[in-house]
Amino acid sequence: MQDLLREIAILNSTSATLDWDQETYAPSKAVEFRSKQMAYFAGKIHELKTSPAFQEGLENASLGEANQRELKHQFDRATKLPKELVERASETSTLAKAAWSEAREKDDFSLFAPHLSKLLEIAREQADHWGYEDEPYDALLSEYERAAKTHEVAGLFDSISEDLARIAATAVEKSATIPADLLHGPAPIHEQVTLNREIAESLGFDFQAGRIDTTEHPFCTTLGPADIRLTTRYDKDDFTSSLFGVMHETGHGLYEQGLPGDDFHLPSGQAVSLGIHESQSRLWENHVGRSRPFWERWLPRAQELFPHLRNIALDQFLTAINRAAYSSIRVEADEATYDLHILLRFKLERALLTGELEVSDVPGVWNDTFESLFGFRPANNREGCLQDIHWSMGGLGYFATYSLGNLNAAQLHDCAAQDSEVAGGNRQGNFIPLLEWMQKKIHAKGSTLLPQDLMESATGSPTKPDAYLAHLRERFC
Amino acid sequence: MQDLLREIAILNSTSATLDWDQETYAPSKAVEFRSKQMAYFAGKIHELKTSPAFQEGLENASLGEANQRELKHQFDRATKLPKELVERASETSTLAKAAWSEAREKDDFSLFAPHLSKLLEIAREQADHWGYEDEPYDALLSEYERAAKTHEVAGLFDSISEDLARIAATAVEKSATIPADLLHGPAPIHEQVTLNREIAESLGFDFQAGRIDTTEHPFCTTLGPADIRLTTRYDKDDFTSSLFGVMHETGHGLYEQGLPGDDFHLPSGQAVSLGIHESQSRLWENHVGRSRPFWERWLPRAQELFPHLRNIALDQFLTAINRAAYSSIRVEADEATYDLHILLRFKLERALLTGELEVSDVPGVWNDTFESLFGFRPANNREGCLQDIHWSMGGLGYFATYSLGNLNAAQLHDCAAQDSEVAGGNRQGNFIPLLEWMQKKIHAKGSTLLPQDLMESATGSPTKPDAYLAHLRERFC
Repeated sequence: MQDLLREIAILNSTSATLDWDQETYAPSKAVEFRSKQMAYFAGKIHELKTSPAFQEGLENASLGEANQRELKHQFDRATKLPKELVERASETSTLAKAAWSEAREKDDFSLFAPHLSKLLEIAREQADHWGYEDEPYDALLSEYERAAKTHEVAGLFDSISEDLARIAATAVEKSATIPADLLHGPAPIHEQVTLNREIAESLGFDFQAGRIDTTEHPFCTTLGPADIRLTTRYDKDDFTSSLFGVMHETGHGLYEQGLPGDDFHLPSGQAVSLGIHESQSRLWENHVGRSRPFWERWLPRAQELFPHLRNIALDQFLTAINRAAYSSIRVEADEATYDLHILLRFKLERALLTGELEVSDVPGVWNDTFESLFGFRPANNREGCLQDIHWSMGGLGYFATYSLGNLNAAQLHDCAAQDSEVAGGNRQGNFIPLLEWMQKKIHAKGSTLLPQDLMESATGSPTKPDAYLAHLRERFC
Repeated sequence: MQDLLREIAILNSTSATLDWDQETYAPSKAVEFRSKQMAYFAGKIHELKTSPAFQEGLENASLGEANQRELKHQFDRATKLPKELVERASETSTLAKAAWSEAREKDDFSLFAPHLSKLLEIAREQADHWGYEDEPYDALLSEYERAAKTHEVAGLFDSISEDLARIAATAVEKSATIPADLLHGPAPIHEQVTLNREIAESLGFDFQAGRIDTTEHPFCTTLGPADIRLTTRYDKDDFTSSLFGVMHETGHGLYEQGLPGDDFHLPSGQAVSLGIHESQSRLWENHVGRSRPFWERWLPRAQELFPHLRNIALDQFLTAINRAAYSSIRVEADEATYDLHILLRFKLERALLTGELEVSDVPGVWNDTFESLFGFRPANNREGCLQDIHWSMGGLGYFATYSLGNLNAAQLHDCAAQDSEVAGGNRQGNFIPLLEWMQKKIHAKGSTLLPQDLMESATGSPTKPDAYLAHLRERFC
């Protein structure tokens, strides 16, 4: 069984390498053959993960209770879907992505609507095959957030939605006088690369086991137990754009570098869920990266590299990087307004899946709900219900994990800061004690605990809103 | 059978991608896991290439006579070696490489000698398994130069060795007054990248189906039918170092880009031999890249990018890039002296394999033979018999293809220039007609003809020395 799992790990990481190369360096004409390679490996991996040998191994191997539990879960998920459905899902998504892209460009929802209907039909079928306790959405959410229950997540979100909206409104109001381009100025890419690297290194990212490259859409990917690749993109007038992106991806990368490398092929050596992964990225991007002690240490260095910052005092700098403003676009949203975008999507996705919301009503309901949260309507569907790629990829059930990540990040940060060494480090701009706390409480555990059990073991409680709301109030109110 | 061959092509190109990444971008700690990935794919590929399905496919598929012939040859070669020998060869080579590296560093041949003995023993066993007509060396040479006969290659080399030595001596003498650093001067890497790319593009290299990266040892590798990667290294004071390297690798790359892409998985879509491959690299590096019409076109551009060249006239520039000097080191050798290094190695390899030469006598015989060719003795074994990595990798039989490449390049160039359009282009510094000739006569043929049949079909004669000697005399005497 170990050999079979090692083989799957080799194929998975090889596929990740082909994908990374495709996103970073591959010439344009390489795509056609590359897609054949990727499809081949996807097929091989699926074949091995659903093979009789895998099933037999599950019954006989002694890999520890947690690994057995997770591998059995993965095997069940993989084998429950009929081949016809897997292929239909793949084809539908390929067509839907193209249609979404065109619909978005032309700002014409009707081009995407029939595809969304088909994707929902497939999602419902998948949920039926996978099975669920309360509602079909559970089965989808569980793909990204193991063992999460929709009604619990909904309860959590409902309990904070008004607070989040109020905090956002206050933050936006207080930021009204801060110019959006206060920190803009010439930022040669070479200098940005230098600062990003120095900061990622100081946070504990091991560049002998990882690197940073340039892509249109930033991501973090794992090519091997000691090979974690981050990416970013550069704005020549705004060094904060790539810097906070890199700190976000560094958070993902530190989690991956902190997993037990010897168990790379086992759940015990793999990240447990997107909600936990996102907690790590948001921790370093927001809790650390937008804090005073961090910039007490790093502003002088940034001023060395970018002379236009030399007139800007620390207080003013902090105000600028924590500026809040409403935007129709999720990926441009700041910390104070981000979750409102998620609440909207979570609510609509759930209603679409139950059939309570018709596909044709999506644009109107999106805009109404958006207005109730943000106080204004998106200018068009491109800036509304057509902005995200996720649905077209069949990624229903994904969005909630972004806000779970925010909640988890605050709760973990708060709990870690009860350790005097961590707190002392945090105050002095030395975040290695914080990293070591995360390594011990989160990274080292891999997938041996379910996400909520992991939160409980690390902080004494499953995910709850207190720390996050307190953090937002302290920062923005 | 087509499906099986496509699967092998996917695995081969994936393995090449992992290797390329390892050489270019992978962080240092990635090596351990990467080597496991590479070993896994090597095993899978061997398994498929020696499988009953492959054998059956060979008998039943209709892939055309040439493909059947080549695939049968590959199957025979792969299945004739017992697994024990394949594994022993791999292990011996791993240890031998480490020993060679240490021996070279310490200038102590005795550290490498026992490994070389084992490698020779393995080479003899391989040759016995593969079979040969005249002498064991045939079986090794054939791994790199399909169907080549050692005694014919030896006859060819013997017939020109005195001429080569005389031409080299004349060239070196005539170059005595040319300073080695005549073209040296500040060459920012960014400007080198620009010039290299412009030149590679003008020679016909398609950057939508390829790219250039930086590595310690330059190479060309094929990651897919439309994905050819070249590499180079930069000397900040000598732009010619990377430029001629890039033109060399561009020659390899143009050959790969010119192969029939639809037959990527078949011999008819694959390069035929190293001696033909090297003919393409040497063609663009030496026949084109060191010619007057080429620099009539490109010197002004080089002078724009590198101001220190602005005082140098075309004649002086041509003298400098065609300067000849004796060196103990093969990889530093110029066009006029290069083949002497090859003659030496070919002679010693052949004698080692027959047992005529004892391993312990290698340093002395190397130095004696070197002195007879070059007129001086290497300073030590590091600059003598320990300089090349090839033997330690088990690469016996490889060196001859470098000189075959030189001979083929001249013969092909000569023949192509009998076409008036090619000749006209060559005179005007437009080498696209030359490329098109090579595409038609060489690239498009893949491995459908044996190397010597390919030379005959393209030029009317198998490899012969006339064109090469004439070219060297014209350039250096």
